Amino acid sequence: MPGAAAELEEGTVLTPKFDADGLVTCVATEAGSGDVLMVAHMNAEALAKTIATGQAWYYSRSRGALWKKGETSGHTQRVVEMRIDCDQDAVWIKVEQVGGACHTGRRSCFYRAVPLGQEGAVTLEFRDQRVSDPQAVYRNKD
Amino acid sequence: MPGAAAELEEGTVLTPKFDADGLVTCVATEAGSGDVLMVAHMNAEALAKTIATGQAWYYSRSRGALWKKGETSGHTQRVVEMRIDCDQDAVWIKVEQVGGACHTGRRSCFYRAVPLGQEGAVTLEFRDQRVSDPQAVYRNKD
Repeated sequence: MPGAAAELEEGTVLTPKFDADGLVTCVATEAGSGDVLMVAHMNAEALAKTIATGQAWYYSRSRGALWKKGETSGHTQRVVEMRIDCDQDAVWIKVEQVGGACHTGRRSCFYRAVPLGQEGAVTLEFRDQRVSDPQAVYRNKD
Repeated sequence: MPGAAAELEEGTVLTPKFDADGLVTCVATEAGSGDVLMVAHMNAEALAKTIATGQAWYYSRSRGALWKKGETSGHTQRVVEMRIDCDQDAVWIKVEQVGGACHTGRRSCFYRAVPLGQEGAVTLEFRDQRVSDPQAVYRNKD
């Protein structure tokens, strides 16, 4: 293994591998259930703020702006633990979610199941119910 | 909400929003623990094969090739459930992982914790032990 890869994978220094847009992927799971709540992105500033404050900050690609989760909706995420992956281009945060994580008003963005064992057209199955009125939630999509 | 967004978010038709490279992000969690094992990508073919077979297929960006997880290492992933997110650009699969998911020989790619409440340089903390010899695992990185 080349030195750079060894340090990246086996070292103790945080050296995030940001993509061409300066972002890493972030997966937020619910600390209690382990359910995936959302997948979003962080730039260097969002990552630094999340580490410093223990509250989830993201970077919105659609709005081109730093974004504190729940800043306007109140649906904040307190980070219980943060992990980084082998090649340091993805972050996993376990969070305590206030309200719903999804802008549609649901607890998780992953509220539809994809049935397995099929070829061709697939009919999605709804799983999560809304926990709040989406009209009342400020639209904070990535 | 425009018709297209309503259908994308509230419809029952699987219409994945592939990025410019033809990929969606896929998060694989361990069905039992809820731990995130890896973050990778799927193209349309990998997604279709995963749905049809119930085994995880990915698309390797570094190798530019379709990839059945565990094809050479034996460290396959049986998909227990698949979910898709609100804007259909990310997939979550709950899997039963044979052996380790990570090419470093660890159960999860997220084997290092990032301590919170700090500013500036961060020292990562190792959490997971190796479950297999990385030299014996075919290097299947995304």
